[in-house]
Amino acid sequence: MSIEGYTDLKWFLVTSPAEYVAHVQTNRPAKFNAYHEPMWLELNQIFNKLSVDSNVRAVVFSGAGDKAFTTGLDVQAASQGGVLGGGENKLDIARQSVQIRRHVEEFQNCISSLEKCEKPVIAAIHGYAFGLAIDLSCCADIRIASKDAKFSVKEVDIGLAADIGTLARLPKIVGNHSWVKEVTLTARIFTAEEARQVGFVSHVEENKEKAVQKAVGLATLIASKSPIAVQGTKELLNHARENTTAATLRYTGVWNSAALHTDDVKAALLSGIKKTKPTFSKL
Amino acid sequence: MSIEGYTDLKWFLVTSPAEYVAHVQTNRPAKFNAYHEPMWLELNQIFNKLSVDSNVRAVVFSGAGDKAFTTGLDVQAASQGGVLGGGENKLDIARQSVQIRRHVEEFQNCISSLEKCEKPVIAAIHGYAFGLAIDLSCCADIRIASKDAKFSVKEVDIGLAADIGTLARLPKIVGNHSWVKEVTLTARIFTAEEARQVGFVSHVEENKEKAVQKAVGLATLIASKSPIAVQGTKELLNHARENTTAATLRYTGVWNSAALHTDDVKAALLSGIKKTKPTFSKL
Amino acid sequence: MSIEGYTDLKWFLVTSPAEYVAHVQTNRPAKFNAYHEPMWLELNQIFNKLSVDSNVRAVVFSGAGDKAFTTGLDVQAASQGGVLGGGENKLDIARQSVQIRRHVEEFQNCISSLEKCEKPVIAAIHGYAFGLAIDLSCCADIRIASKDAKFSVKEVDIGLAADIGTLARLPKIVGNHSWVKEVTLTARIFTAEEARQVGFVSHVEENKEKAVQKAVGLATLIASKSPIAVQGTKELLNHARENTTAATLRYTGVWNSAALHTDDVKAALLSGIKKTKPTFSKL
Amino acid sequence: MSIEGYTDLKWFLVTSPAEYVAHVQTNRPAKFNAYHEPMWLELNQIFNKLSVDSNVRAVVFSGAGDKAFTTGLDVQAASQGGVLGGGENKLDIARQSVQIRRHVEEFQNCISSLEKCEKPVIAAIHGYAFGLAIDLSCCADIRIASKDAKFSVKEVDIGLAADIGTLARLPKIVGNHSWVKEVTLTARIFTAEEARQVGFVSHVEENKEKAVQKAVGLATLIASKSPIAVQGTKELLNHARENTTAATLRYTGVWNSAALHTDDVKAALLSGIKKTKPTFSKL
Amino acid sequence: MSIEGYTDLKWFLVTSPAEYVAHVQTNRPAKFNAYHEPMWLELNQIFNKLSVDSNVRAVVFSGAGDKAFTTGLDVQAASQGGVLGGGENKLDIARQSVQIRRHVEEFQNCISSLEKCEKPVIAAIHGYAFGLAIDLSCCADIRIASKDAKFSVKEVDIGLAADIGTLARLPKIVGNHSWVKEVTLTARIFTAEEARQVGFVSHVEENKEKAVQKAVGLATLIASKSPIAVQGTKELLNHARENTTAATLRYTGVWNSAALHTDDVKAALLSGIKKTKPTFSKL
Amino acid sequence: MSIEGYTDLKWFLVTSPAEYVAHVQTNRPAKFNAYHEPMWLELNQIFNKLSVDSNVRAVVFSGAGDKAFTTGLDVQAASQGGVLGGGENKLDIARQSVQIRRHVEEFQNCISSLEKCEKPVIAAIHGYAFGLAIDLSCCADIRIASKDAKFSVKEVDIGLAADIGTLARLPKIVGNHSWVKEVTLTARIFTAEEARQVGFVSHVEENKEKAVQKAVGLATLIASKSPIAVQGTKELLNHARENTTAATLRYTGVWNSAALHTDDVKAALLSGIKKTKPTFSKL
Repeated sequence: MSIEGYTDLKWFLVTSPAEYVAHVQTNRPAKFNAYHEPMWLELNQIFNKLSVDSNVRAVVFSGAGDKAFTTGLDVQAASQGGVLGGGENKLDIARQSVQIRRHVEEFQNCISSLEKCEKPVIAAIHGYAFGLAIDLSCCADIRIASKDAKFSVKEVDIGLAADIGTLARLPKIVGNHSWVKEVTLTARIFTAEEARQVGFVSHVEENKEKAVQKAVGLATLIASKSPIAVQGTKELLNHARENTTAATLRYTGVWNSAALHTDDVKAALLSGIKKTKPTFSKL
Repeated sequence: MSIEGYTDLKWFLVTSPAEYVAHVQTNRPAKFNAYHEPMWLELNQIFNKLSVDSNVRAVVFSGAGDKAFTTGLDVQAASQGGVLGGGENKLDIARQSVQIRRHVEEFQNCISSLEKCEKPVIAAIHGYAFGLAIDLSCCADIRIASKDAKFSVKEVDIGLAADIGTLARLPKIVGNHSWVKEVTLTARIFTAEEARQVGFVSHVEENKEKAVQKAVGLATLIASKSPIAVQGTKELLNHARENTTAATLRYTGVWNSAALHTDDVKAALLSGIKKTKPTFSKL
Repeated sequence: MSIEGYTDLKWFLVTSPAEYVAHVQTNRPAKFNAYHEPMWLELNQIFNKLSVDSNVRAVVFSGAGDKAFTTGLDVQAASQGGVLGGGENKLDIARQSVQIRRHVEEFQNCISSLEKCEKPVIAAIHGYAFGLAIDLSCCADIRIASKDAKFSVKEVDIGLAADIGTLARLPKIVGNHSWVKEVTLTARIFTAEEARQVGFVSHVEENKEKAVQKAVGLATLIASKSPIAVQGTKELLNHARENTTAATLRYTGVWNSAALHTDDVKAALLSGIKKTKPTFSKL
Repeated sequence: MSIEGYTDLKWFLVTSPAEYVAHVQTNRPAKFNAYHEPMWLELNQIFNKLSVDSNVRAVVFSGAGDKAFTTGLDVQAASQGGVLGGGENKLDIARQSVQIRRHVEEFQNCISSLEKCEKPVIAAIHGYAFGLAIDLSCCADIRIASKDAKFSVKEVDIGLAADIGTLARLPKIVGNHSWVKEVTLTARIFTAEEARQVGFVSHVEENKEKAVQKAVGLATLIASKSPIAVQGTKELLNHARENTTAATLRYTGVWNSAALHTDDVKAALLSGIKKTKPTFSKL
Repeated sequence: MSIEGYTDLKWFLVTSPAEYVAHVQTNRPAKFNAYHEPMWLELNQIFNKLSVDSNVRAVVFSGAGDKAFTTGLDVQAASQGGVLGGGENKLDIARQSVQIRRHVEEFQNCISSLEKCEKPVIAAIHGYAFGLAIDLSCCADIRIASKDAKFSVKEVDIGLAADIGTLARLPKIVGNHSWVKEVTLTARIFTAEEARQVGFVSHVEENKEKAVQKAVGLATLIASKSPIAVQGTKELLNHARENTTAATLRYTGVWNSAALHTDDVKAALLSGIKKTKPTFSKL
Repeated sequence: MSIEGYTDLKWFLVTSPAEYVAHVQTNRPAKFNAYHEPMWLELNQIFNKLSVDSNVRAVVFSGAGDKAFTTGLDVQAASQGGVLGGGENKLDIARQSVQIRRHVEEFQNCISSLEKCEKPVIAAIHGYAFGLAIDLSCCADIRIASKDAKFSVKEVDIGLAADIGTLARLPKIVGNHSWVKEVTLTARIFTAEEARQVGFVSHVEENKEKAVQKAVGLATLIASKSPIAVQGTKELLNHARENTTAATLRYTGVWNSAALHTDDVKAALLSGIKKTKPTFSKL
């Protein structure tokens, strides 16, 4: 089903597989969904919009085509115009460094838009999931893989430390640092099953279709709950990851001092009694 | 075996199944051990007392009856008098918010008393373990489940983000954020076995009796060690969870500059040589 | 193969099993590789040197002999001269405490040299791995065990809270706090397989030889990558463990604004195209 | 004017010099208002009560009598029963240290009640203001001195580092660390005028009466403002002192998402237009 | 002198009083430079552009007209359409709170653009400087006042806690918390001279013209220095304000590992020897 | 008076002007006490030694000769061999950056030895105090200037952001950020009197001799106090600068749980009663 307001896109496909659910697909299958700059700029716009779109309560993120979630940075494009390009640059090294830093920060900000999106984001990952694929997945709230997924924190293989978020987030979301160090330092491929065992993904499905289906199912379930409750939960969990327990408890008290004024509590309690499905107004 | 000083309780049962071990049970089985305000106030008093009670070196925490560890907040009670009640309130919204915040903070503080207790706390969890059950369990040091345990971070189902500690602590004590997000955003039930696989509980036992037995066994083992060593270990691990490695190393050095003056080291070393069981004086 | 510059050692053996790989062995097998003060001072010197040695790109750390990675602190030595010694000390308690604190800090600093080493360190752990063995392992980047490894956070058994790093690091590198609390509070032995299941080690090998072989294999693989990429990856992951995501993203941008000027990127990309093995200059 | 609910006090006097203003006086002038344990316990009770007392919007804190704000800890009392007492204690040093730590923490918590009080606290300081006087003053929001005030961070003179809050707070509230180090390391007396010049107090008044009058004046002014605005301001400033700017901005947004629902804004704006004095309902 | 690229502005005037210096003026003098939403959106665009504009090395920020730097939020406009408006809103309170939070955050982000601007910003403040004037000034790097400036943290007077940055930044940039609390809790007006004495502004000039002149003079001086050095200095000082000393030292080392590759050092050293004025290329 | 154990120095003079007081002088007056690498390495050794030297309880730090405290980095030396040298370097830029980072960190560590020294350090500053002079002074606990002192955060004038500690520490020890930004961004010279007004130094004396005399006087006073109390005070104040109030309060409780076992308290109290000068044993 199409979804209003996301039709003018060049590199992504946004549909609505269920009420209040958006499905965002990287749509460059001929190139294994490899990313270049216009793509992450568009991605940023999409997620900033979804974040405040009251018709959306949960988002599924996947890659179009059979082959790949994404093989990561389009290295060829990057070599020509971008950071890895080099080329004739008359600036001194320090000035070039400033340009690199600005570029990396803008790139990071775009990818972080999945994390900053107020609605939960569920990544459904299949096929090649290299380099930027991991940065993107780390920004999702929930990760689901299809059996054929081949993951790699590929960056050391092209001579650089991953700088778009993998190294910043992976040690915080996977509690097995020996494994985290191993896969980031060796760039070796790991399977969906290995990803599940170490806690990087929470489900492995038979194939891409099933993985997307599972993601849409979870998204639909989440979208059926109070959006006040759901969006508060995402925010508070992300706060907890970055702050002390005491700080999060305090923040939670303040957050809920506003959020508990919602009609959703009454609606939910009443539905619980009446055994009906509650309806929650838009947010 | 009864235990001195904890007899005047209304909602909890405190016994001593072994030397230096206390067993605290939520004792409202007819209501599935659901909590209302007088209960968490009493809970707070109990754990503040256990924290400095030199006859206690480890604590087991469980729920009375066959059915439930606890089904969480007694929603009916909460709807009538408390935060979720609404009712006729002549204060403006901002003033009501201040009251909610104060209420949430007091509630959080009471539950945090398990974490602040200087003695290790082992939760033995069976049957329904919904909502507040997770907040409580997250405050324990060690979690053991019986096979029949049915866990749920239930709060989104009643229209609110869990605010008594689950969201603040779960991402810090379970290293699988994809799973943490999934269960908190969907409120789906998860089993003891799933809890063990993701690292929320460290043992699953056949039934409630065995789970409590396992917990008492661990508590007895811990209670046989130097209380200076044990209480320092709990404190330093909790410090590590909230601080940088450098800060904890520094804090540890200062902590042990006092703690290493204990006679327990000599007692332990001597017992090691003599193959006897060491005796440690009270703390 | 011997390695230049590390021949004058008394307590350790340093060899080079592969190009750019160093292998450091605690070499006191007759005493189960138990540590006393001169040993950790020498260890510190070795790792400070490896950190800036351009002939080394990855380090394997293990224990000599069949029996033990290390049984930890040489308690006998410690009882005689050191912190646990007591003896006739004319200083008042506060002054003794200052001495203890300084001693603990120096000890911590020496062990932390594995973590501070700019090159990745892979611990291959076999046999007894008690007390200090865990402090040391926690400082390694990757942990591999042989099947016969017997781990124990032994400190509570001698009357003290582990103060050389285990309590500061274990909760940060293993995402199962229920288990972390259990093994640190009880000092119970856990096996290699249990260590793998909870995510403390990332591989279990059949025996010591295989474990070292696996470690050397990983080290060799890592040493074949761009040292700029590898060392940046270690640094950024360690930064992520201690800082907020936002802080690490910022730090990463600045780090790579210098690191992306490397010739290694070009070398790696070219090799990718030519299907050859890239050569990276020393660092 | 007397004030309801604070009449049963032994060591303090609580009056109401103006509407919504409470005045708390340490009332042991015969002993220069020196503190012993029952006093800080009572102090804690008073400020916890004021914190949620809707009849109070600002608090003045001073010392009874002509001579002293307070000369600090009643050393005689402390030497007899308390921490500094020593005496026959059969516990080993580590166990005594645990008792000291618990004692210091409880003492700190009692004094911190001025800071935690949701209503602004203005200290009016005269005469001797030694030791604990500085800990107490640092917890106040605003500090006013009379000309005759003689301040001293006295603790090093009795052989200890100030542990009830001065060293934790002074470097955060006075931006002249050279001076902070000087007065804390030497215990030298400094005058009201010096205190004003370095920014420890914001006003110096001619004598005690005038200082209290100034404090009451400020408190009355503050009490005439919206209590939602005032209490939010105190909270957010204290948050800013302890957190990054980004964290406080975020917290502020959440705080005001509840607080801006107040009727006080309308009342204030309307009064601004009508040139009348707004009335704000209780909080 | 006009400056390229900033001509299409509605609410601000951007000129270039000296080489590499931009002067931004709030240009709504008829309304005392009071702000409404389109203004802070435009302000944000201007400073984001200045931040990366290689023709600009330092920025002066002031208010047009004789009367006011700015009297702050245009309360009338805010009452009609914005946050303070109220009006008919069919959303429940929690949903309204989400809208408020989003609105406050966007507003904060726009004002923070002065702080995030990579080039130093010098505020020249005259006349009325109320409410938002303080939020804006706190984001500047250097503050200069004219004698006639009348400052007020006005927010409590309209029933709210200042939420656009004053409370987050003022305690960090002025080391006299007694004064900070006093002026924020009372909303009393303070003079330029008082602002100078407590360290809020670093210079007071005779009148607005002189203040702007002084600011332009400082900006010109700063613009004559190496932009690599100047922009690094701003960044590192801001980092220091928010981080521990150890973290900033580390960050500084990484920062300068890129920045020291600049040709500016050679240029500066050579000029020092030759007693000439160095020329630095654009950044 | 000479002082044992510091006689083999090349660049510094260490004497003992009073009991338990050491006086360290940078001793290269012919070169305005400008620093090159061997000097900061020696400085580091001296302060590490003073830190644990039980004959020293307070340290004065100044510069030999009439002209300068220090004019900072010996730029000529730096240009030839060091970081600023450039020269023929065959390493790629990223590898050079690693070397720069290591160099800056080692340099920072050496200067930080004044701050890490457990004994209070008082800087007496005269004449030229440029560049590194500020980094050094910021590491002292107390700063005293002679009237003729000419300060400058000189680094931007040679094309770089100050990286040895000034930017990390100055905003934390001087509560006037407008001034801090001004002097660091412009490199303008400021006088002793200005330094006193903004709170960078706490005393200005007539000339160098008087400044050193004042510093020695303060050091002698500090050295007459309990070393347990004094060193605890320095440690806790430095902790407070870098941590939250809650963290420092907790740390303080643990610190004093060891430190309060000192005999110094009894000695001090007894002397107070007897009106004699207490004697404290060495630390």
